[in-house]
Amino acid sequence: MNEMPKFLQKIGQDWWLVEDERENMKISYRIKDIIFAAPSDFQHVMILDSYDFGRMLVLDGVVQTTSLDGHIYNEMITHVPLSIHPDPKRVLIIGGGDCGAAHEAAKYSGVERIDMVEIDEMVVRVCKEHLQDVSGNLSDPRVHFIYNDGIEYIKQHKNAYDVIIVDSSDPIGPAKQLFERSFYENIREALKEDGLMVCQSQSPLFHREVMKQTVHHIEELFPISKIYIATVPTYPGGFWSFTIGSKKYKDLVVKNFDKETKYVNESILRSCFDLPEFLRTK
Amino acid sequence: MNEMPKFLQKIGQDWWLVEDERENMKISYRIKDIIFAAPSDFQHVMILDSYDFGRMLVLDGVVQTTSLDGHIYNEMITHVPLSIHPDPKRVLIIGGGDCGAAHEAAKYSGVERIDMVEIDEMVVRVCKEHLQDVSGNLSDPRVHFIYNDGIEYIKQHKNAYDVIIVDSSDPIGPAKQLFERSFYENIREALKEDGLMVCQSQSPLFHREVMKQTVHHIEELFPISKIYIATVPTYPGGFWSFTIGSKKYKDLVVKNFDKETKYVNESILRSCFDLPEFLRTK
Repeated sequence: MNEMPKFLQKIGQDWWLVEDERENMKISYRIKDIIFAAPSDFQHVMILDSYDFGRMLVLDGVVQTTSLDGHIYNEMITHVPLSIHPDPKRVLIIGGGDCGAAHEAAKYSGVERIDMVEIDEMVVRVCKEHLQDVSGNLSDPRVHFIYNDGIEYIKQHKNAYDVIIVDSSDPIGPAKQLFERSFYENIREALKEDGLMVCQSQSPLFHREVMKQTVHHIEELFPISKIYIATVPTYPGGFWSFTIGSKKYKDLVVKNFDKETKYVNESILRSCFDLPEFLRTK
Repeated sequence: MNEMPKFLQKIGQDWWLVEDERENMKISYRIKDIIFAAPSDFQHVMILDSYDFGRMLVLDGVVQTTSLDGHIYNEMITHVPLSIHPDPKRVLIIGGGDCGAAHEAAKYSGVERIDMVEIDEMVVRVCKEHLQDVSGNLSDPRVHFIYNDGIEYIKQHKNAYDVIIVDSSDPIGPAKQLFERSFYENIREALKEDGLMVCQSQSPLFHREVMKQTVHHIEELFPISKIYIATVPTYPGGFWSFTIGSKKYKDLVVKNFDKETKYVNESILRSCFDLPEFLRTK
């Protein structure tokens, strides 16, 4: 370890990743090893091996997903919509470079095609190679990787998908547009007439305004909207929200949930819609 | 701010609380103001005003509860047992110096007496004065403050309580004994013949062994045991477990949950028992 990537600091004998993007709270992780570190065309990409979270995908110095808990987020953003749509055949994932959402979607035998639109090819490559607890070394022939800007891609597709999963990072920099109303309008057009979408809508505690705005857009654009929640330890506060916009289907159709999962099961699929009091009285 | 309490560091122009008790992960909070800071007979006690979490109770440099989310923990540790016991009259709280659990228990008109056994009088005093978002400036005449060691107190009481709430800090230092089997044996004896207890049983992700051991003790000592979960943003990973040990009552008796709360409602009281797959397949 002669030349250390930026974002890492030596404290005493140990190397630490010190997340530095938040104004009022910093989380630092003690690091065992640097598996991969290089700049891509879009951002600085690292796979680090940490003590408490195992391997982590780190973009521009910010932890995105980890071996310890990546499955929670990916199972929740994927199995909930795929358990509401009764017959999903064509699935689009926007973002999701860790491949976890595509890995979960591939567990549905009825799904015929999964298009994954991720702007940064390097993220996909290193997650497939070095972060297999999350990516599952995804090699399903139904998954098509499209290295492109999700904003542009969605404008060019109409009436094409049963389910669209927006697996974005935080609404800063390029991902900011993934939280704007025009983007959700284009998603509505890209869905079939009975299609549904889901997006991560940030923390109900720390990003209340982003969450409210996202929910507001989706409520205006879709006849059916639903919020659900999960605990994602890697994200600040651990308390995370997802929002569904649906043209037709509302209720879970899952009869016997039979996918192999670590977090989601049939009772979680139902109780994730039970919101705390402060979220019900908006 | 001439003489700064230890645990606080100046970084750039700002003061930060840097939690330093964990081996592999550190969380730092940017601080607006120091409301109170002094050593008690047992520990170093601070009330800090932070940017993201509002006021925080900090013991020996570790955040215990905050204005932002203290209610989640306190509502969950209190309303779940008090919604399972059909007629709780005498409630014992061991620990709980922030007064939040006592504040929640006092919302039940049928409760006649709440004994709160907290070793550190200073914690109670400063929370009542400076952390009213959590303590509610508790002044209910049914609440009796007993400044004593919970381990000793419980040995001297038999067949005395309907509900016992063990609101302990982490199992390090003096709180370690609050996780030992003999303590739960004494709790069983202190409960009436149809009584029930609840304790916080740490994080299912980061303290798996402590949680397993606690659940194991309670399963051995009580005919009925149940695990439930909540998201508590202040605690590492946000994902927290509670364990109930009950002599008789098993199911929620709540018909119309009518307490004024910010987090708990009737659906949360039910769905908190829906465990993720990795906790069901122990």
